[in-house]
Amino acid sequence: MKVANQTYRTIWPDPRCKFVHIIDQTQLPFAFKVVQIHSLEQMVSAIKTMQVRGAPLIGAAAAYGIALAMLENEADHYLLAAAELLKNSRPTAVNLAWAVNRMLAVLQEAPINRRNITAWREAAKVAQEDVAQNQRIGQHGLGLIKHLYKEKTFNILTHCNAGWLATVDYGTALAPIYAAHDAGLDVHVWVDETRPRNQGAALTAWELGQHGVPHTVITDNAGGHLMQQGLVDMVLVGADRVTANGDVCNKIGTYLKALAAFDNGVSNQRIPFYAAVPSPTIDWAITDYTQIEIEQRHSDEVSYIQGLAADGSVQNVRLTPLESNAANPAFDVTPARLVTGIITEQGVFAPSNLHQIMPAE
Amino acid sequence: MKVANQTYRTIWPDPRCKFVHIIDQTQLPFAFKVVQIHSLEQMVSAIKTMQVRGAPLIGAAAAYGIALAMLENEADHYLLAAAELLKNSRPTAVNLAWAVNRMLAVLQEAPINRRNITAWREAAKVAQEDVAQNQRIGQHGLGLIKHLYKEKTFNILTHCNAGWLATVDYGTALAPIYAAHDAGLDVHVWVDETRPRNQGAALTAWELGQHGVPHTVITDNAGGHLMQQGLVDMVLVGADRVTANGDVCNKIGTYLKALAAFDNGVSNQRIPFYAAVPSPTIDWAITDYTQIEIEQRHSDEVSYIQGLAADGSVQNVRLTPLESNAANPAFDVTPARLVTGIITEQGVFAPSNLHQIMPAE
Repeated sequence: MKVANQTYRTIWPDPRCKFVHIIDQTQLPFAFKVVQIHSLEQMVSAIKTMQVRGAPLIGAAAAYGIALAMLENEADHYLLAAAELLKNSRPTAVNLAWAVNRMLAVLQEAPINRRNITAWREAAKVAQEDVAQNQRIGQHGLGLIKHLYKEKTFNILTHCNAGWLATVDYGTALAPIYAAHDAGLDVHVWVDETRPRNQGAALTAWELGQHGVPHTVITDNAGGHLMQQGLVDMVLVGADRVTANGDVCNKIGTYLKALAAFDNGVSNQRIPFYAAVPSPTIDWAITDYTQIEIEQRHSDEVSYIQGLAADGSVQNVRLTPLESNAANPAFDVTPARLVTGIITEQGVFAPSNLHQIMPAE
Repeated sequence: MKVANQTYRTIWPDPRCKFVHIIDQTQLPFAFKVVQIHSLEQMVSAIKTMQVRGAPLIGAAAAYGIALAMLENEADHYLLAAAELLKNSRPTAVNLAWAVNRMLAVLQEAPINRRNITAWREAAKVAQEDVAQNQRIGQHGLGLIKHLYKEKTFNILTHCNAGWLATVDYGTALAPIYAAHDAGLDVHVWVDETRPRNQGAALTAWELGQHGVPHTVITDNAGGHLMQQGLVDMVLVGADRVTANGDVCNKIGTYLKALAAFDNGVSNQRIPFYAAVPSPTIDWAITDYTQIEIEQRHSDEVSYIQGLAADGSVQNVRLTPLESNAANPAFDVTPARLVTGIITEQGVFAPSNLHQIMPAE
């Protein structure tokens, strides 16, 4: 997508396949920095420090991490060690293990002296497949927005960042929004700031702004009121996991917006609530969402916040009394009864129809 | 209530009735500062900049604002101009208009050369009545908590600050909590941080901590998840205005917690949602809550946040991209259908029974 009128992806290889470029997301929204990653170690560090973040992007970054390793040494022991190192860089990221295992499978089949070129080619395929998947999500979502669109500004509320910064390009929840904007529809996005890590205020607002999509940042508290006032036409979020029933596990606070969408709307039509995900995000093994373990993150994410100080430096400031504890559950689950539909690369499905795209064993 | 083991109120007159002391709440929780207010203009500014905030405290502050004005000039035109200035300092606060009108009524009856002394006496009565009223709210709320209490930690979720800092003393929503804690009940409070101004993280956490009440700060996003997990036994908030029907106008985000309370609970018993208010907060003239004008505050409150920097200074840091707009509706309305009851100084009433305490014309 666009940054200052130039087209970017979040990760791309040098044309000679000698190194990889990434956007350093720890600097956003206050500085746009492209960083060169020249080695496996640098890629592991970029994943660990969240210079690259978002499940689909981490997958592509790990694939390029293997390619960088093969540049150094194509031997078996080096390949296996690289795979191990990458898998341990963010242990909970499912896409990371998936991408590394895919690279391993392909490279173990290849002749050892062809592993370097094979790795770069396969990593490019991992990245390109993510892009294509998100484009299809965008097109299916665009169809939905066109169906709901009514000759006036169409207001979409989103939570957290499921934009192109979380993927290689286009994003998941934001893909339909970019598609609608690029198709000339008058869309406006309410951006939940998404405490505690403020991915909405920092990343979603930035990427929408750079691409020219009209948007307004709001506190996480404001969405219900905006819905009561008729100022939200659709809620559109990503998801970290979707159950076979269509329950949506996403960033903490998503459930509250789903409740408000369900409680409001014009003439008894509730406000539509959609999650947009690539179909591998659907966990077919889980039908009871109470089985999903919710990650408890460090309380400092609640007690402190990062922002741009008057002197231009990025600072952490304390928000709570030094004596007060904080709790930080990172995700919540929106039960399927509150979910209008799941937008996937294979189409849009009501929770009760999701089984139609369950892959055969 | 206690601050570092000393007893304070949020506002008190100099014994010679020449100026007023307030606690500067914009400095909390990182600095405890008492400020002297010497003029009507200073009081209007203290209300506007939220050095004093919270509906009941604003009422008392406005009463003392009139007293400060009468110190300067007891003439009719000055009284009326002072009343107008104070009423316009915070449009949503019904207590403000109520207190100013009460002062006007008393002072217009008084001989002009007795207005100064009459005003200070009446302002002290306004403050003392608030204290007594909140004590009664605390006792009625304590009865309710005892009724719901079940031999284990009783978890109360609160939003914003309706504690003693929002009143002259004791608080409204926190009065029952202080009463329960002081009565030896095992209560624990989930404190919503309450973006954008973080009155929960800054003020509620601070005053609960100073009084020794166990509490945990959470983001505004977390409450719904905690309710799904059975970790909330009651939601207890204040209100800036309650309609004759029992609709609750309170800090933005309250409505989302009411929805979650309604959606959860044990064996089809929803989690009780109560608002605690002095009865003057009930606006008997309003039966349709859509008539309530919602204050839109400055977007900088969303784009910036204040916290304690590493060097010990209190700093404002920017959270959003410089190019992104923000919207900042300050209140929302929780419809009566989501409200279990209103705790007042006259008892606890279901919304449908609120009319029992409607004053005769």
